[in-house]
Amino acid sequence: MAEVSDLKAAAALLSWDQQTYMPSGGAAARAEQIATLEKLAHGRFVSEEVDSWLEDAASETRALSYDSDDASLVRLTRRDYDKARSIPPSLVEELARRTSLGMEVWVKARGRSDFGLFRSTLQTLVDLQRELADCLGYRERRYDALLDQYEPGMRSAELDRLFADLKGGLVPLVQDISQKLESVQDEVLRQSFPIEKQTTFGLEMAQEMGFDFTGGRQDQSVHPFCTSFSNRDVRITTRFDERFLPSALFGTLHETGHALYEQGVSPALERTPLSSGTSLGIHESQSRLWENLVGRSRGFWKFAYPRLQRTFPRQLAGCSPEAFYRAINRVEPSLIRVEADEVTYNLHIMLRYELEAQLVEDSLPVADLPEAWNGKMRDYLGITPPNDALGVLQDVHWSHGLFGYFPTYSLGNLISVQLYDRARREVPSIPEDIERGEFSPLLSWLRESVHRHGRKFMPAELVHRVTGEELRAEPFVSYLKAKYGEIYS
Amino acid sequence: MAEVSDLKAAAALLSWDQQTYMPSGGAAARAEQIATLEKLAHGRFVSEEVDSWLEDAASETRALSYDSDDASLVRLTRRDYDKARSIPPSLVEELARRTSLGMEVWVKARGRSDFGLFRSTLQTLVDLQRELADCLGYRERRYDALLDQYEPGMRSAELDRLFADLKGGLVPLVQDISQKLESVQDEVLRQSFPIEKQTTFGLEMAQEMGFDFTGGRQDQSVHPFCTSFSNRDVRITTRFDERFLPSALFGTLHETGHALYEQGVSPALERTPLSSGTSLGIHESQSRLWENLVGRSRGFWKFAYPRLQRTFPRQLAGCSPEAFYRAINRVEPSLIRVEADEVTYNLHIMLRYELEAQLVEDSLPVADLPEAWNGKMRDYLGITPPNDALGVLQDVHWSHGLFGYFPTYSLGNLISVQLYDRARREVPSIPEDIERGEFSPLLSWLRESVHRHGRKFMPAELVHRVTGEELRAEPFVSYLKAKYGEIYS
Repeated sequence: MAEVSDLKAAAALLSWDQQTYMPSGGAAARAEQIATLEKLAHGRFVSEEVDSWLEDAASETRALSYDSDDASLVRLTRRDYDKARSIPPSLVEELARRTSLGMEVWVKARGRSDFGLFRSTLQTLVDLQRELADCLGYRERRYDALLDQYEPGMRSAELDRLFADLKGGLVPLVQDISQKLESVQDEVLRQSFPIEKQTTFGLEMAQEMGFDFTGGRQDQSVHPFCTSFSNRDVRITTRFDERFLPSALFGTLHETGHALYEQGVSPALERTPLSSGTSLGIHESQSRLWENLVGRSRGFWKFAYPRLQRTFPRQLAGCSPEAFYRAINRVEPSLIRVEADEVTYNLHIMLRYELEAQLVEDSLPVADLPEAWNGKMRDYLGITPPNDALGVLQDVHWSHGLFGYFPTYSLGNLISVQLYDRARREVPSIPEDIERGEFSPLLSWLRESVHRHGRKFMPAELVHRVTGEELRAEPFVSYLKAKYGEIYS
Repeated sequence: MAEVSDLKAAAALLSWDQQTYMPSGGAAARAEQIATLEKLAHGRFVSEEVDSWLEDAASETRALSYDSDDASLVRLTRRDYDKARSIPPSLVEELARRTSLGMEVWVKARGRSDFGLFRSTLQTLVDLQRELADCLGYRERRYDALLDQYEPGMRSAELDRLFADLKGGLVPLVQDISQKLESVQDEVLRQSFPIEKQTTFGLEMAQEMGFDFTGGRQDQSVHPFCTSFSNRDVRITTRFDERFLPSALFGTLHETGHALYEQGVSPALERTPLSSGTSLGIHESQSRLWENLVGRSRGFWKFAYPRLQRTFPRQLAGCSPEAFYRAINRVEPSLIRVEADEVTYNLHIMLRYELEAQLVEDSLPVADLPEAWNGKMRDYLGITPPNDALGVLQDVHWSHGLFGYFPTYSLGNLISVQLYDRARREVPSIPEDIERGEFSPLLSWLRESVHRHGRKFMPAELVHRVTGEELRAEPFVSYLKAKYGEIYS
């Protein structure tokens, strides 16, 4: 398992490098290299030997408590093993190679805003995903097999139920706010903010929140992400927009949330399959908690706004803390998911979920994707993307072979509120601590309740252990109603 | 072979990252990861299967010409295989892990200038090298086994002969120059040169010389190096000194020489064992050719000096081209190898060669190394290092397990002159081309004569094919006498 973990860490570094520093000429060889590493990692993991080790280990750990590291290691590794075993090595290699090349094609297509350049590549990727789903197996829908890779145990039937609840709460809220869009303005965020100063301020905030930079770093990439090669080497990336302060600022807080999770996994789990976050939904609950529940709160800016004003004295001279708070929480239906506000964000996700499910179920031809995308943008958000770069080509995910991934963003939003509600119930000082720039009470609670466990518990299991509740949409909707009801009167 | 090549490329990227961007906390896990990759690469290469493939391939390629890609591939791979087969996998893994950790210890010890912090680590590394040499086998001296890893076919007996000739030429030259040290001054190079401008100028020169930055890049590291992950992804690093212009400038030209070699290997050899430079000596002949024979020539600065003056107008205002040429060619016995002038440089190398040979032959205890180092510095250069950082801890090599590597620097110096003499005989316009900033005639000659072959020919074989001569010290000594005889009258 340690060797497999090393191979995966190496593949992750090759991918990080590809997205940050690699010269364009390196793409073809890099695709081969990543494919080889993935193939070897897969091959070593799915050997007959591992099967018999796991059987022996299962009987040896039978007497241990369910929560113990060893019992959890055997339980989760067995689940991984059975999944991995179902995928032929040739498909693993092909997926790795195609998705690495796919990303290069996407970067070019996005640069020229031309979906046509990406279409046949995407078709290949969709075909491979269908093949993958059939290998992995599923009970109800083919899509469930893909979803389970990112959110173990989740099914589209449950997703449909949660999203229906969410839609029921969101739609009237968005309609109400839409009557009053003009009551909140954000011109103050749309000035010139030198990138060097943005970088420094973002890194300072990340550090205040608890990001340990002796065990991590930040770089730039087209699509921001967090990756780790050990829990002492956790890396985030950011994208800067000199003319719009929130892009990099909240991007950094978001990725910091991911990084804190990875840095907080128990060192005892290093080089095992348990040494990372347990699902993308739980991961996203951490990033959204720090980005939104902390980072877009009045309390946080009580601490941080004076420092931001010192960083950008000219730009923020005439802006009161309250005006700044309102500006960063402005709601407006917009084109780009990663820059969407908290209220409309989940509509972007539902759109992607519905489209990728259709692609995978074969009810939507790839050629029709841009039109379907633009149609749903009109239906859900009332706007039409002027070009492919601002529409169907905006996200890296599909080019990277990530289907079944998008819904985890919304799951993260729901879970973040359930966790944060619980944290404040158990440690009532948290809101006041944050106003003073004291983040360690919140971070300690998260470390203890969520981070240290790594992948020991399945996501639904973890939510239930920590909150005593099932995953629900209601707390998130209540949070939005209270916050935006106040902002928009 | 392609998989082995991919694993090695991945290990090289992990090492590049360790030296450029990795946070310090990542060191322990990185050591494990590199060790795993090296072990797997070694394991896949030395399998019985490969042995029988090589036997089959040998008979299949028997009818092909010696120079053909296929015959060369089989010939060189068989040599590699027999070497690799002699090293047990456990030793490969241990070497990789210890040298990765060793470098971290060296970085700390060098930072604190305390050899004591590094001593026991170095002892372990020396012991491993002895074990390695005994596995590899040798006829005359244990050291030959290590030397052969970097300069295939070279023996210390031949080295001793070459170095004796070299010493015979160098010692009187250094003595003569030492009478006139004051006649050349370099204060002009010791002003404030903003690092950003140094970077830009260095990159411009690299590009003029032919470095293709769509297939490469430059970063910063403590010890400058060149590495490649394919011939379309070749990376160099540089170390900047704001107060001394030549450090980064000639460092960049040096590493560019290495990079041009790697970028020039025939694409047909990609993902085979032939896809890189054939030896460190030949590699160093390329770096020294561009750094010294081109970069420190009057002709080069006829082209480049006006541009350098435009980059640093204030600093170079009162400095004539001739004064600049003399300054960059100032000879002075000094402490740091990588900043030594062309004349004294090889004395630094002889010192290291003699000491590492003694360490490996067990005639010098590791604990006595700093004293032995300082003694030889006094004998050869007449100066005593004031501390370990400027003495025995200055080079990364031993910390990285590189024993038998240093002599290749001097071999490179000798070969560079033999090749450059030949190039000018075949393409007489080269000196005038360089004065006009036209580097492609020289680069094309090197591509055709040296680069494209990759590892197809052994170093001595390549030198003979290209120049019709054996490796000799005389042309290098003649070059130095002519150049420095003129500068120092």
